[in-house]
Order: sequence, then structure tokens, then C-alpha cells
Amino acid sequence: MSNLELQVLGQDAAPGAGPGTACCWPLVREPLDEAAAVDLARMFKALSDPVRLRLLSLIASHEGGEACVCDLAGPFDVSQPTISHHLKVLREAGLVGSERRGTWVYYWVLPAALARLSALLDTPAQAGTALR
Amino acid sequence: MSNLELQVLGQDAAPGAGPGTACCWPLVREPLDEAAAVDLARMFKALSDPVRLRLLSLIASHEGGEACVCDLAGPFDVSQPTISHHLKVLREAGLVGSERRGTWVYYWVLPAALARLSALLDTPAQAGTALR
Repeated sequence: MSNLELQVLGQDAAPGAGPGTACCWPLVREPLDEAAAVDLARMFKALSDPVRLRLLSLIASHEGGEACVCDLAGPFDVSQPTISHHLKVLREAGLVGSERRGTWVYYWVLPAALARLSALLDTPAQAGTALR
Repeated sequence: MSNLELQVLGQDAAPGAGPGTACCWPLVREPLDEAAAVDLARMFKALSDPVRLRLLSLIASHEGGEACVCDLAGPFDVSQPTISHHLKVLREAGLVGSERRGTWVYYWVLPAALARLSALLDTPAQAGTALR
């Protein structure tokens, strides 16, 4: 799937108009349906581990926007197989893409997936304050 | 803590300038440190369950921005104690606030906490595409 396709798939989850338009904040607009909640919870579960969050950030902040698996184990006090397991969880959740080139596998973040989660959690600053 | 204070505390996690300024996307700017990752992973763990995600959305989308616990069990095929457990997880993760008024406990989302997570996942659309 191309990055363009990923962007288009992510569009309906992106916030539309500005603050004050309750219609456009996914979490506020209407209760999440069960299927969407199952799908989103699976992605959040992939983010619920500190090592996976740091791996995601290492990949996202790496020069050129992608990182070789050979660059990713160094900062962690865990084994290479454990790093590989965490990378697999991130990949299966659709948060990173990967490709083997020669000896090494390279990883990059999938911005549309992160944008979907970001948009979901983007709520009006005044949420929950109406009655206080 | 007032909502104003919560907003101020959340400011440093908010994205600053527009796309293209890699300095301002938290995940891209620099690798997350371990302490931040532990803290954020705990919040994502609270979002990693479909029932909790739906509860959060039910609360956020409820009229007035808050919901009585008596309004929250109806849509789910789980027991009231299970709902109460999930609400406790959301509260302990700092994602919702609560207050007892008479017979019932009322819940509301804490927008600064959600904004912190939203900002973390807000990455430039071109992330990971530099080499492809």
C-alpha cells in the first residue's frame, strides 16, 4: 500500500473544523462503536509498553525517518529477540512498516495510523468542564 | 487542580509550529526517555481495552461533558462491577475525573491528559517516507 493510500484511509478520522465544533472530535461526536473500539484498542495495546514506545520514537526520530534493526537494540537493556518481538507487535498493529534490505530489516512509522489515534484523542479543551 | 492548571501542564507536550518543523513533533524530535515512556505507556494501557475506550467515548460524548455511572453500564454486556473496575483504571491513569454527588458518581474526561497523548502521536505526514 502506498503512503498516499494510507493518508486517504486516515482522512475520516482526522479532526475537521476547529475547536467548538463538537461534530468533529471523534471521541466526543458520538460513542465509539464496538468494532472501532476493538480495532483502536489493539493499536493502543501496542503502545502500552515502554520499550515499544521508545522503539517507535527511536524509529520516528531516526535520520531519514527509518531505522535499521541494527540501530535499535543499543539503547535497551533487553535481548535482541525481545526487541524483535516488540517490533513485530508494532508492525502487526499497523504502526510501523518494515522491509529487509540485504542483511538488515529497516523500520519506519506509518503516519496515517498514528494520525488516526492522535485525532481520536484530540478533544476540545473545554471537554468535561461544562458543569464545573 | 483547576482545568487551567491542567492546560498549562499539558502545554509542553502540544505540537508547536506547523508541519515540517521536526523540532515540534514529540515522537520525532528526539527519542523518548525511559521515564516518559513508562508514564505514557501506563496511559496507553488504560486505552488498550475496547470497553474502556467505549466508556471514555460515552463520557466524552455525553451531554454536558460528563456522565453518571448510572448511564454507563447500559450499552455493555458486562457486569456493573466490571464497569466500575474499568472506570477506576481510567481514573487511575489520569484520563477521567470523578466526583460523588448524592447516590451517584459522575465522570468527565481530562482534556489535558488526552491532549498529551494526542500530541505525542501527531507526526508529520511525511514521516518514514524520506527514503522511499
